Amino acid sequence: MITGKNYIGKELSSKGSNTYTTFNPKLNSDTEWTFHEATKEEIDAAVNKAYEAFKVYKSFSGEKKAEFLIAIAEEIEALGDPLIEAYTKESGLPEGRAKGERGRTMGQLRAFATFLKEGSWVEATIDTAQPDREPMPKTDLRKMLLPIGPIAVFGASNFPFAFSTAGGDTASALAAGCPVIVKSHPMHSGTGELISSAIIKAAERTGMPDGVFSNLNSSGIEVGQQLVLHPKVKGVGFTGSAKGGTALYKLANDRKEPIPVFAEMGSINPVVALPSALTDKGSDWAKQYAGSIMLGAGQFCTNPGLILGIKSTSLDSFIATLGAEIEPLEPTCMLHPNIHKNYEKGKQELSGQGGTNVVAAYESDVAPNVAQQKVLTVNGSNFLKNPKLHQEVFGPFSIVVRCADAAELEQVLNKLEGQLTGTILGNAEEIKKYDKIVDALQGRVGRIIFNGVPTGVEVCPSMQHGGPFPASTDSRFTSVGTSAAKRWVRPVAFQNWPAAALPDALKDENPLGISRLVDGKHTDAKI
Amino acid sequence: MITGKNYIGKELSSKGSNTYTTFNPKLNSDTEWTFHEATKEEIDAAVNKAYEAFKVYKSFSGEKKAEFLIAIAEEIEALGDPLIEAYTKESGLPEGRAKGERGRTMGQLRAFATFLKEGSWVEATIDTAQPDREPMPKTDLRKMLLPIGPIAVFGASNFPFAFSTAGGDTASALAAGCPVIVKSHPMHSGTGELISSAIIKAAERTGMPDGVFSNLNSSGIEVGQQLVLHPKVKGVGFTGSAKGGTALYKLANDRKEPIPVFAEMGSINPVVALPSALTDKGSDWAKQYAGSIMLGAGQFCTNPGLILGIKSTSLDSFIATLGAEIEPLEPTCMLHPNIHKNYEKGKQELSGQGGTNVVAAYESDVAPNVAQQKVLTVNGSNFLKNPKLHQEVFGPFSIVVRCADAAELEQVLNKLEGQLTGTILGNAEEIKKYDKIVDALQGRVGRIIFNGVPTGVEVCPSMQHGGPFPASTDSRFTSVGTSAAKRWVRPVAFQNWPAAALPDALKDENPLGISRLVDGKHTDAKI
Repeated sequence: MITGKNYIGKELSSKGSNTYTTFNPKLNSDTEWTFHEATKEEIDAAVNKAYEAFKVYKSFSGEKKAEFLIAIAEEIEALGDPLIEAYTKESGLPEGRAKGERGRTMGQLRAFATFLKEGSWVEATIDTAQPDREPMPKTDLRKMLLPIGPIAVFGASNFPFAFSTAGGDTASALAAGCPVIVKSHPMHSGTGELISSAIIKAAERTGMPDGVFSNLNSSGIEVGQQLVLHPKVKGVGFTGSAKGGTALYKLANDRKEPIPVFAEMGSINPVVALPSALTDKGSDWAKQYAGSIMLGAGQFCTNPGLILGIKSTSLDSFIATLGAEIEPLEPTCMLHPNIHKNYEKGKQELSGQGGTNVVAAYESDVAPNVAQQKVLTVNGSNFLKNPKLHQEVFGPFSIVVRCADAAELEQVLNKLEGQLTGTILGNAEEIKKYDKIVDALQGRVGRIIFNGVPTGVEVCPSMQHGGPFPASTDSRFTSVGTSAAKRWVRPVAFQNWPAAALPDALKDENPLGISRLVDGKHTDAKI
Repeated sequence: MITGKNYIGKELSSKGSNTYTTFNPKLNSDTEWTFHEATKEEIDAAVNKAYEAFKVYKSFSGEKKAEFLIAIAEEIEALGDPLIEAYTKESGLPEGRAKGERGRTMGQLRAFATFLKEGSWVEATIDTAQPDREPMPKTDLRKMLLPIGPIAVFGASNFPFAFSTAGGDTASALAAGCPVIVKSHPMHSGTGELISSAIIKAAERTGMPDGVFSNLNSSGIEVGQQLVLHPKVKGVGFTGSAKGGTALYKLANDRKEPIPVFAEMGSINPVVALPSALTDKGSDWAKQYAGSIMLGAGQFCTNPGLILGIKSTSLDSFIATLGAEIEPLEPTCMLHPNIHKNYEKGKQELSGQGGTNVVAAYESDVAPNVAQQKVLTVNGSNFLKNPKLHQEVFGPFSIVVRCADAAELEQVLNKLEGQLTGTILGNAEEIKKYDKIVDALQGRVGRIIFNGVPTGVEVCPSMQHGGPFPASTDSRFTSVGTSAAKRWVRPVAFQNWPAAALPDALKDENPLGISRLVDGKHTDAKI
């Protein structure tokens, strides 16, 4: 049942008088749920509980934290159909997507559990003592990653499950040993509350300290700001707009004690179609890209918003096919009227830029909040001189740039800001032939793809979801995949520390059986 | 020979008319060397050369970069006595220290060379394709760390070799594959120029691209600011004051594209003397700590500026012995009149705080720039209410705090800002008995030491030199030890990438023979 209350640890709480409702974009009307915005006192209570919980939770074994994460996945599954109904109501996304994303979210939690059980991720590094070394003896030194403290998580509008309440940021922080305070996304606070109830159940069932998780309702920016400025909050995870992410990043940097903000802010994900891709497989790629642009009403941070090619008749036919393929596709409902309004505004602004031509535009009447797709084309020189065309339009929108030659294409890439992904379509020989283009693209992205589409982000150790600014605020870390846990830890070295008092990961006997760097060698052996 | 010119890549350059000299603190007079401050054009030229050099240097093998680092060590050694003379003249530090630090600097360069040859540090992570996976096939994904671009390095006043021109920041950035532009420290620009000449020789000898290293003279803050704001500079390494480091950090965060700043800003390195340490070994520790406080005229970021104990007669005798041991020690010359002036100012300010008593103070006449040691004592409640007493006084100065009980000692630790190190003196049983104290200390430091002194920072994989803010700007990284290279890289994932075009570290055959994470398992085997 959705109560509209906050979770301050395991306590449901609704002390504030400010309320808001969520919205059903398909019905174009409010849902039946009313939420109590968290008060300053409730925020403070949640952070203080998290701070106290940290003192215990940080020392729990990987096994114990893994049990908790697995229990969360089980409790999410146990929520059954009401959860799927809340999701589809509050997001306008179809049931199939809801179930797929729920599966992904549970899969993520289980992947972190496996990662914790394996345990080597703490980067245990040991240099044993050399008491006879000349001119100075060398003392015993052992280092490992330890959790930093309570983390504030800001969920994404476009992934109510996988990048929200129990999504990658929460799962990775809990895996790292950090309590989490979620600022619920105002577009899907009901879904968030149900998921929160599952986390709280799992926490109680597996003996976690009260305060290991809290969920705060919020319709504006105040709750988030207070969280980021709270001295006991030690890190922030965010998925959303560049504007929101950058604001939090600045806020956190200006604290007396600055804290890390991992904001994943999306990008236009440039795709370079090299000549062979267009001559040999142009219509295949056109079809695949029509689907990729339309996926989830284009509401993905990996949506291909920019396709680059070198002027040729095969580029012309690719563009014509892309237009013919995408135009008749049935447009779908966006997450919220505000997102739809921004999409229409962005689309209109870019369509009005000099030198652009329409490739495809869905123009039949649609229901409210449905995103009509559009594809433009422009030549390289116009694109180069107009930074407006480099901006993300969140929705089923893309621009195909016709570059005069390879040099101009390289120039375009060098003008782009940081990106989550970049894609090369072509053959292996072209990677060599167009090495400057490949190199320019690689220097700007977190993930580079060969012959594929950027949508679809695998959850695995080798995933990199995070690119140079402004794709994300810290390109050295990923928000997807098990490495995401490394955002919430810092190394601590123990010098000459008594054997019995060392954390298990650093003990001579290697009781966890993990892979360690011992005197410069990678090994899972005892010392 | 010291020319007073800048190195813009391999070119000596002196286009500017602003000059400055360095100072010999022992003679209390200028050295014979005059330096040309780098102009805006020279800065720009150095960064542009670094940017071009990066295009080539970033792809060099570990072997090739290792040769370069080893050659730098050799060329530094080949500079012979004139280098040691310049160092002692410009720093006032004795010849033995100069030679020791030179050895450490060459050792560091060689350690990074070994690290590069071993090669596993790039964290190669591979998830092979599963084309038959249901419901969706899994594509091949491989990730590794790649260098980020030109790095600006700001040397430290107190380590003209080990934390300056060819020090840890430079060695780690070059190891990572990033060209370096050094902003020379104005107190030892002559030493810096000699070291630069060795780096340039080594670069030419081992076939490095011009621009892989530049050295810019600067007496004020403008050169540094321009470097940090230059769009082609992608990271900053700094060792120095909290004021300077924080200013650069803010500057870099406010760029259109923020860049990481790794500023190591020092701390007061609290030492907790638990009861058994005072009853059983009080006079031993007093003697050792007298030496640690005096080491290098107290000009170490790991200098023990704060010693905490619980009120007892054994604490009283520890304090008395510390005073008796430290007072007669011969004080030594500081690095520069400005550093000496700041020391005197800080010492005076803290000595004037309510509730402090003098334990020891060297009061005989001394030569100019010589730092007279001082130790104060204060009780816990006075310390708790006066944040001025928590500040670092850079020099041979320390405060012993008499806490009423263990609870007050814990409170004191919880009030402290982030620290590079923390030390526990006691026995193994006390680690358990005083677990809250140990825990509070560990939460505030990068390195925690048992029964030792914080001065002395081993260069090895398990070293952590960097603590929570304001000890450093990013506690997730270290500035000492081979892990320091991880500051200058970011992960890049290659999806479905053609085998032949993959970097060696990610190839199926594992031609580098490195340890990798393949399908979730740590292995150095082929695929």
